[in-house]
Amino acid sequence: MTEILRPDGRRSDELRPLRFQHHIAPHATGSTLIEWGKTRVICAVTVEESVPKWMQSKKIPGGWITAEYSMLPYSTLERKTRDINKLKQDGRSVEIQRLIGRTLRTVLDLEALGSRTLWVDCDVLQADGGTRTASITGAYVALALAMKKLGAEGKILSSPVKPVAAVSVGVVGQRPMLDLNYEEDAGASVDMNLVMNGEGEFIELQASGEESTFSAVHLEELLRLGRHGIGELLQRQQEALT
Amino acid sequence: MTEILRPDGRRSDELRPLRFQHHIAPHATGSTLIEWGKTRVICAVTVEESVPKWMQSKKIPGGWITAEYSMLPYSTLERKTRDINKLKQDGRSVEIQRLIGRTLRTVLDLEALGSRTLWVDCDVLQADGGTRTASITGAYVALALAMKKLGAEGKILSSPVKPVAAVSVGVVGQRPMLDLNYEEDAGASVDMNLVMNGEGEFIELQASGEESTFSAVHLEELLRLGRHGIGELLQRQQEALT
Amino acid sequence: MTEILRPDGRRSDELRPLRFQHHIAPHATGSTLIEWGKTRVICAVTVEESVPKWMQSKKIPGGWITAEYSMLPYSTLERKTRDINKLKQDGRSVEIQRLIGRTLRTVLDLEALGSRTLWVDCDVLQADGGTRTASITGAYVALALAMKKLGAEGKILSSPVKPVAAVSVGVVGQRPMLDLNYEEDAGASVDMNLVMNGEGEFIELQASGEESTFSAVHLEELLRLGRHGIGELLQRQQEALT
Amino acid sequence: MTEILRPDGRRSDELRPLRFQHHIAPHATGSTLIEWGKTRVICAVTVEESVPKWMQSKKIPGGWITAEYSMLPYSTLERKTRDINKLKQDGRSVEIQRLIGRTLRTVLDLEALGSRTLWVDCDVLQADGGTRTASITGAYVALALAMKKLGAEGKILSSPVKPVAAVSVGVVGQRPMLDLNYEEDAGASVDMNLVMNGEGEFIELQASGEESTFSAVHLEELLRLGRHGIGELLQRQQEALT
Amino acid sequence: MTEILRPDGRRSDELRPLRFQHHIAPHATGSTLIEWGKTRVICAVTVEESVPKWMQSKKIPGGWITAEYSMLPYSTLERKTRDINKLKQDGRSVEIQRLIGRTLRTVLDLEALGSRTLWVDCDVLQADGGTRTASITGAYVALALAMKKLGAEGKILSSPVKPVAAVSVGVVGQRPMLDLNYEEDAGASVDMNLVMNGEGEFIELQASGEESTFSAVHLEELLRLGRHGIGELLQRQQEALT
Amino acid sequence: MTEILRPDGRRSDELRPLRFQHHIAPHATGSTLIEWGKTRVICAVTVEESVPKWMQSKKIPGGWITAEYSMLPYSTLERKTRDINKLKQDGRSVEIQRLIGRTLRTVLDLEALGSRTLWVDCDVLQADGGTRTASITGAYVALALAMKKLGAEGKILSSPVKPVAAVSVGVVGQRPMLDLNYEEDAGASVDMNLVMNGEGEFIELQASGEESTFSAVHLEELLRLGRHGIGELLQRQQEALT
Repeated sequence: MTEILRPDGRRSDELRPLRFQHHIAPHATGSTLIEWGKTRVICAVTVEESVPKWMQSKKIPGGWITAEYSMLPYSTLERKTRDINKLKQDGRSVEIQRLIGRTLRTVLDLEALGSRTLWVDCDVLQADGGTRTASITGAYVALALAMKKLGAEGKILSSPVKPVAAVSVGVVGQRPMLDLNYEEDAGASVDMNLVMNGEGEFIELQASGEESTFSAVHLEELLRLGRHGIGELLQRQQEALT
Repeated sequence: MTEILRPDGRRSDELRPLRFQHHIAPHATGSTLIEWGKTRVICAVTVEESVPKWMQSKKIPGGWITAEYSMLPYSTLERKTRDINKLKQDGRSVEIQRLIGRTLRTVLDLEALGSRTLWVDCDVLQADGGTRTASITGAYVALALAMKKLGAEGKILSSPVKPVAAVSVGVVGQRPMLDLNYEEDAGASVDMNLVMNGEGEFIELQASGEESTFSAVHLEELLRLGRHGIGELLQRQQEALT
Repeated sequence: MTEILRPDGRRSDELRPLRFQHHIAPHATGSTLIEWGKTRVICAVTVEESVPKWMQSKKIPGGWITAEYSMLPYSTLERKTRDINKLKQDGRSVEIQRLIGRTLRTVLDLEALGSRTLWVDCDVLQADGGTRTASITGAYVALALAMKKLGAEGKILSSPVKPVAAVSVGVVGQRPMLDLNYEEDAGASVDMNLVMNGEGEFIELQASGEESTFSAVHLEELLRLGRHGIGELLQRQQEALT
Repeated sequence: MTEILRPDGRRSDELRPLRFQHHIAPHATGSTLIEWGKTRVICAVTVEESVPKWMQSKKIPGGWITAEYSMLPYSTLERKTRDINKLKQDGRSVEIQRLIGRTLRTVLDLEALGSRTLWVDCDVLQADGGTRTASITGAYVALALAMKKLGAEGKILSSPVKPVAAVSVGVVGQRPMLDLNYEEDAGASVDMNLVMNGEGEFIELQASGEESTFSAVHLEELLRLGRHGIGELLQRQQEALT
Repeated sequence: MTEILRPDGRRSDELRPLRFQHHIAPHATGSTLIEWGKTRVICAVTVEESVPKWMQSKKIPGGWITAEYSMLPYSTLERKTRDINKLKQDGRSVEIQRLIGRTLRTVLDLEALGSRTLWVDCDVLQADGGTRTASITGAYVALALAMKKLGAEGKILSSPVKPVAAVSVGVVGQRPMLDLNYEEDAGASVDMNLVMNGEGEFIELQASGEESTFSAVHLEELLRLGRHGIGELLQRQQEALT
Repeated sequence: MTEILRPDGRRSDELRPLRFQHHIAPHATGSTLIEWGKTRVICAVTVEESVPKWMQSKKIPGGWITAEYSMLPYSTLERKTRDINKLKQDGRSVEIQRLIGRTLRTVLDLEALGSRTLWVDCDVLQADGGTRTASITGAYVALALAMKKLGAEGKILSSPVKPVAAVSVGVVGQRPMLDLNYEEDAGASVDMNLVMNGEGEFIELQASGEESTFSAVHLEELLRLGRHGIGELLQRQQEALT
């Protein structure tokens, strides 16, 4: 039986095209522009040769990593006012950058990093669904590029970062689908974001049904689709890094 | 075989004692103080007889519900500076109040509510783990009390709110456990928050392993424990409301 | 001659019922919920084992005490927006917390306190007039409880705090009255807040006639009523502490 | 018996020299620079031909008056950082401008003012004690000048403002004194600010003993001194206005 | 006589290589990434089909244009903290975006634009000197692309924008030079930014000698170099637009 | 041929009357009220006996100077809201205070100043055009007064400040004019601000044609007029200082 294709011609378990444009911001230690379908995010990693004050005062060994996420004003269909003009960071951005930070702290060996802070900036150039998963997937690549540079400069012996990727899955019109674009996301009854490492383990799993609820059966199907997508993403990241 | 009990004498699948003290804030339309183990949260619902401007300008029928979460400065072991003194809402609070708001919008029939805004405030009086799940579980009770009052005043015909409860589960020392207190939460390798409705369907599921990762097997066990806890919570809410 | 009673059945010189619910916030060093008529304020004292930077840099011996006052959003008849959403502390709150702080610095022996900071938080749960006087009256009780605990822990030898209480008096319809509730306060032509210590001395006296003025005769009567109320309050505080 | 004079040669009941320099800010409707000893405050009244939104929406007839108080950075012995650089209005300024506003609302007939807003700005050019009482005393003069101008323009029939003046009194080294300068104020055990109208009635009375307490006897003496000072100030204001 | 070349091999009157990458942000109405030497700025124009409130209330015909400038955190050699984390827009950014806005209002026929607002965003991806002149030069290109699109949609009849370009000139080691990069800029004794239109007229001229001063002779030479550069830039813009 | 005079009776190359009122703010180290036509600016210099943290940490020798510019609310024809009430410094003020700071750093020998910070505050009391040039011209006088005082106190050997003055020039109705007042400024097609030192060298030159453009010929004429005005201003400053 032939599967009914999605509006953009994809199968249910098919990712949108993925492309990385490295060194988009050359002053950063590592950077890449991840283009995932029509979603584009600048991911840049900057190294600071010191650790936050709270680590200094508690004499915690090793380093730290922190993430910031922001949507550029022209990234959305309707222009988005800059946070500084509201004197308040957008609530959704706060939530997303906390997710990115938690994720990266799971795959980074903070002790092996040494007494440094890594700043990971994810700035959305164009939003067409999945900006948080694109940020995580791209941030890993930028992080790996930055670690390669630190290694070449003799500052670290081996990369303290292990692979991680993220993907969205959802139920649209009763049908589970991988990697929703904006249109699909807006019509989805369930939206799940999955973050996994290179060994098939979960790091974060966030499923939400704002207008609806979901069953254990849905959950199972979404996890299966998500795992499949993560596998492919991890492979694409490796290709982009070699 | 006898199960090894937890530090506070509970079994793995046992909730901490739960108690509701209604009308803690009598100026609110509905309010309750939920005491869940040593965690205490004031949940209060205030009704405003108008809708937000964005709904007015787009002429969207029905009402709206929004949530605010905050920790009182003396709720934590070390005093927590008030947000206003930093001119910035705490990032974790932003994340939690967004979760509460999304959850309540799933179980509330906004059209049946009529042209009103419900403000749900959750202020933590004492934090000992699980403040976000206590907020959701208590908010439902406060919401039901508020709807009862609106009904008695002839403003609504029947309650537009359906039951919802939330519970945390986690893996502590390789062992899955229900309803973590602060000490257990701090030592957990996986932390999951589960929000479910009265029909056994999922509303939100957030699992995170900041220092670690988790497998599909863990996920399965945690979901089983969580479902069990939700069932009991839904029952306790009904008792508290009758 | 029989006195005409007030709407709630009180005589002109009669306080509303007073009740203290200790340890409302167990993570604080000392706390109480003062319920004064329908006014309810959470008073909590937290001890920090260091002093502010300006004292450190000037090498001032002893400790410090500071107060913060806030109205919870559901404490008023119409919901009050949280300060953080306006990025500005409410002007009335600023005025009140300065009054509480000044008062407590008068009755606390800062040198005997030792090199510590006491944070006094007053959060209004329900406002029905007299929240500033309830805050001061309750703050003393919370402070005494906190000092008792410090004493039990061997951190201080004897309590460095002396009794203090506060009460409002006012002229309503030409008639001087003790302890105004919200309705009386709204209709008062003169409003006075009196803060006195256990030896019958004045600490603060603030009298204001926003819509009207007052004579020296009024002042005399109000002071007499106020002194009477303070005497009773000091007694009720001692009972609550033993 | 000869009285021991104060450091600047004044008797206990003597005011510092007072001088008004009108029209210091010609774009304001009325303005004066009050020089009271070494204290200098710019008082300016601006008329806006509309009322605040909350009056418009509640259809309250008449006008409104509001006050703002600020210390210029070079007005103090040590330079004072501008509020905007801290993103927070100074707490003491908030308290003072609320006092000025309440006072002026007592002596202004808001209905007779017509549908206008009066902005009263008090900017301290030099602070040497008594800036809040100088602000009130000067604000009345600026207000009277502004009303004179509105009258000349045919916008009001007669001045809706009645005289008001304010003075500080205090106990320094057990001795009650009128009109404290900065040095005396810093050493005072009691500090009282008195606001009275032209008919000898009280408008505001604020007495505080931060490091100390005060008795009813002190209160009586301070009131007597204050009343005496107010009488003289009211006269000086009239002279300045004719 | 052979001219001594600059560190990057350029002559005194030679521009750095210039490249435009159009449609970098496809959700914007017009956008381009201007790469000028190592300086890279995203210039994006968004159209809003309404005008600011102050224009509406004053019933001013035509449209409006406003500019925002910001440096992405990884655009500088040392990471730049985001404005929102300081709750304050960077002073230099304020100055630059005011310059961009003034400039564009000179070359845009606001009446011909119709009742619309154009938002021009300039986000620096990499800073190597001349970001404000790159912003203006790129903004014109983005603006022309946006107008082309409005024209194709039949919203405007002909483009209401005329050409404008900007370039920096400076004196480095007594020698006037065109188009300074970061290293040259840091060592310059005079720094001038020149904004000119397509008819060889000046729009803005800002010359500054922070560590030094400059003579009328210097000014003359700098203007000559600048005019030459502007001519070339105007040509490059036209090539990029066809 | 007789020149047609300007509305206030001045010739094209004539300055408005200039007057200095020294020691307007006696707590400052040096201060003056510059009255330039109807424009009035308080210029005050405060000395702080330490340098900013960034200089301390980089061990940069010498001192620092920084400027702040603000318009008092009653300085404009329509009352200007205070920055603190918008939680945002006015953009124009940011631009102007950066200009004042850069200018003063050019004429101050920071090393000779010693390890001090000079705060230069310019507060506009009345605005009638040319407030930025009045600020610079007055700031130099206040600075010279402050240095005289430091010299008298034996803190510096000779004044580390050299003369600087600023003036505006513009084209109004095709006619170049010196020192525009508000009315002329509002109608000008070109507006130039010129900052020069005592040796006839340029420090800053900012020319802008918001509604129009200007030619090299205009530029030449404006520079000639400006130079003439600066010469006169430098003389007036010297007179005011002796």
